[in-house]
Amino acid sequence: MVERILGIDPGLNITGYGVVEMAADGLRIVEAGVVRSGAKRTLAARLAEIYAGVSEVLTTFQPAAMALEELYSHYERPRTAILMGHARGVICVAAANHNTPVIPYAATQVKKILTGNGRAPKAQMQRAICRELKLPEPPEPPDVADALALALCHCYLARTRGDGMSE
Amino acid sequence: MVERILGIDPGLNITGYGVVEMAADGLRIVEAGVVRSGAKRTLAARLAEIYAGVSEVLTTFQPAAMALEELYSHYERPRTAILMGHARGVICVAAANHNTPVIPYAATQVKKILTGNGRAPKAQMQRAICRELKLPEPPEPPDVADALALALCHCYLARTRGDGMSE
Repeated sequence: MVERILGIDPGLNITGYGVVEMAADGLRIVEAGVVRSGAKRTLAARLAEIYAGVSEVLTTFQPAAMALEELYSHYERPRTAILMGHARGVICVAAANHNTPVIPYAATQVKKILTGNGRAPKAQMQRAICRELKLPEPPEPPDVADALALALCHCYLARTRGDGMSE
Repeated sequence: MVERILGIDPGLNITGYGVVEMAADGLRIVEAGVVRSGAKRTLAARLAEIYAGVSEVLTTFQPAAMALEELYSHYERPRTAILMGHARGVICVAAANHNTPVIPYAATQVKKILTGNGRAPKAQMQRAICRELKLPEPPEPPDVADALALALCHCYLARTRGDGMSE
């Protein structure tokens, strides 16, 4: 059985998503993109756009799990962090309402798993993503790359745990 | 026509709600309570409980608007604030998915409108709520009182603006 994992990099303006397939012969990208919310709309309307966009991805690709960026401990701008929290909460509910388990991964964990270095710079992360998914160029915008990295991190760990792989 | 206003005090553990009716002969309480989320469940499951609970209130009482506590500028504990943001985002989406406009009010504004004092202590706010809604005792827990205060604030301002009243 081929299982799909959805990675999500949450944001109020741009939420990146990436769907990766865990097949017997390796990992491959199924789809990736962003859900944008109209900056001039009300907060509630913007969150509803995110909810609808993520719900559509869940319905279309039926992932077995959602790998979601974990909360940080420290944020430079509290208001921005709280607004990101709004978006992240909405994404969690979209997953729950589609019976999709949410697995949080810290950014440092994702970097460590993909490159061996929890503080890997952006370029190193891009190379790791391109190599694994056989992409000729790094995915843009960065939110998509981050989402794919989350999905890959989940797949690697699932493989290590021996769950969710068709081998 | 009698219009209902829903006040919401968002929180991950306890979300207070209060429904107030704006009738020609004054304001009265229709219903008030809390939506609790099970502390031992996953974040996504807890947010789904909040979404379902608030959606039920919206469906049952069909309020014309949701008065929602505005974000603060400063928080003592960032992580708690971000988790509150998750809950608040979910509540905004529940409103948007029920076509209910969300009107944010700052805590200081609510206090000012209800008591004339933007820094009114809790006891003074409770007296104002009890007097207006003819309640023998202050509503408990405090989340319910805060939610009712938000709804009352919206009603007072709507009356001043001349909208949403049946007079």
